Amino acid sequence: MSDFLSLINEALAALPYPARPEGLYEPVKYTLEGGGKRIRPVLLLTAAAAYGASPQQALPAAIAIETYHNHTLLHDDLMDNADLRHGRPTVWKRWSENTAVLSGDTMLLLALRQLGNCRCKRHDELQRLFIDTFIGVCEGQQYDMNLEQRAADEVEIDEYLEMIRLKTSILVACAAKAGGIIAEADEQDCNLLYAFAEKVGLAFQLQDDALDVWGDPRVFGKANGGDIACGKKTYPLLTALTLASTNEHQELLTLISNRDTAEQTRIARVTAIYDTLGVRTLCDKAVSAYYDEARAFYELLPLPEPQKRPLWQWAENLMQRKK
Amino acid sequence: MSDFLSLINEALAALPYPARPEGLYEPVKYTLEGGGKRIRPVLLLTAAAAYGASPQQALPAAIAIETYHNHTLLHDDLMDNADLRHGRPTVWKRWSENTAVLSGDTMLLLALRQLGNCRCKRHDELQRLFIDTFIGVCEGQQYDMNLEQRAADEVEIDEYLEMIRLKTSILVACAAKAGGIIAEADEQDCNLLYAFAEKVGLAFQLQDDALDVWGDPRVFGKANGGDIACGKKTYPLLTALTLASTNEHQELLTLISNRDTAEQTRIARVTAIYDTLGVRTLCDKAVSAYYDEARAFYELLPLPEPQKRPLWQWAENLMQRKK
Repeated sequence: MSDFLSLINEALAALPYPARPEGLYEPVKYTLEGGGKRIRPVLLLTAAAAYGASPQQALPAAIAIETYHNHTLLHDDLMDNADLRHGRPTVWKRWSENTAVLSGDTMLLLALRQLGNCRCKRHDELQRLFIDTFIGVCEGQQYDMNLEQRAADEVEIDEYLEMIRLKTSILVACAAKAGGIIAEADEQDCNLLYAFAEKVGLAFQLQDDALDVWGDPRVFGKANGGDIACGKKTYPLLTALTLASTNEHQELLTLISNRDTAEQTRIARVTAIYDTLGVRTLCDKAVSAYYDEARAFYELLPLPEPQKRPLWQWAENLMQRKK
Repeated sequence: MSDFLSLINEALAALPYPARPEGLYEPVKYTLEGGGKRIRPVLLLTAAAAYGASPQQALPAAIAIETYHNHTLLHDDLMDNADLRHGRPTVWKRWSENTAVLSGDTMLLLALRQLGNCRCKRHDELQRLFIDTFIGVCEGQQYDMNLEQRAADEVEIDEYLEMIRLKTSILVACAAKAGGIIAEADEQDCNLLYAFAEKVGLAFQLQDDALDVWGDPRVFGKANGGDIACGKKTYPLLTALTLASTNEHQELLTLISNRDTAEQTRIARVTAIYDTLGVRTLCDKAVSAYYDEARAFYELLPLPEPQKRPLWQWAENLMQRKK
């Protein structure tokens, strides 16, 4: 798997860009150089390899999906007004908002150009999968923006789950299925790959929500309670609201929106309510449930265990990294 | 040709959109309903018909190119801070900047999904043409933004021409060539279609620059001198700067950047300098030169005159409409 990571990073570093206009391509290079774990392209190459395709054959699609993912980060950072990404200024902050719009558009097109370089027999199917997924990710981002406008106690947990599924999981699922398509796996296998990765994606996202509250900051890399401080609707918050007494309910809503009280006080009190309500256990259970579902789909993949094992290693690697 | 226009408008109106999330698809519909002359899809159907393809066969690509064009308008209006388009509030103004980013991204993807619906033997070539063209249009927009940051007397006319070629002409050229590809025209024919339309596009854009100064406002639909008032680098201005005496040169630079003097005074004085220098005649000559080049490529198309005539009618229609 670390071989795949090197291959991907080398291919990204070796991508040719036109020299001009510099203002267009500089931010694209900058974004792709920003690092990240290359979760999606590694999965794509892993799935392709499990079904017998060479990394070289699958590499253009892997680069395409990573380029696309970085396009979404670039535009999301603009929409979210985020200043930093991987410890560096975001594109809109370092250049301008217009640069973020236009270089972001260009990245989306460069991703699709890369995909066009992928020679495989089922190219139409691959292309359709990518476009449909990308449109789904836009829908997810829209749902996310809609959620921000609504009061936390008006948001159903299922709406939140559907949002994260669209915004993050289906792109991971697309990576796995794309690997299968390139390797000419049967339709059923491709669908199992999709379902497996979609569930891992959901487990990962819910784990992320939990780590924001209870993770070890030295390992997780972020101080606890960032989501609480900014009043973000997360799985722990929405779960807590469904379980809270009338008083706790009111207190939670006040704490997440009240910017007058000191941040640390608000975080400590919200976390205390979560703990009273057993939210941490419920989060862990939800993560495990998705992880188990992923495992079940993995088991159904009709491949010899040694051949498919790297796929499960990818999932373990993803889920264990942040504990 | 008016049949093609109806066909396109009907197809655009009949496009299915998911009901949700409304906030994502409403602005897409709004933008495509905004009207416009459907120059590119009409040309695409006309080129396809000249080479024997049915409008039905070429329609998905025609809808794709119009959807893409409207995506560029949506994002350009955001970047240019433009309030109005076809007499209606622009998307960022009516909804929000974030909506403009995200619904704009979605339109680009919807365009490519439409293109994927076009069944033709040379689908890879068609796809590559579209993606390469769209990336070129981004480059053109970047050059345009770069030009805005520079002093007018530091911009070469050739740089300006290359900018408008990328920003506007190559999309028109793409439309013509796409029609040829769908109809399985020979490579040389496809390249002639491209060259023909590219030159018409350049003639059209330079004519637009001239009409802003000397057009009949009742016919052109806009008051004269809008470009002068906002100091836009146009073909007349750049031409005037190359011909002006030292005094006129300085006066022009002052007039286009000085927002203290009354707008009408500035417009009248700049126009007077243009007239002294014979800029109007030079603009007309440049328009005619491109139009003649377009005609020469048209003549080279190895089709019986009656069969190709609609292509020239498209060009005439485009160029005469605004006089």
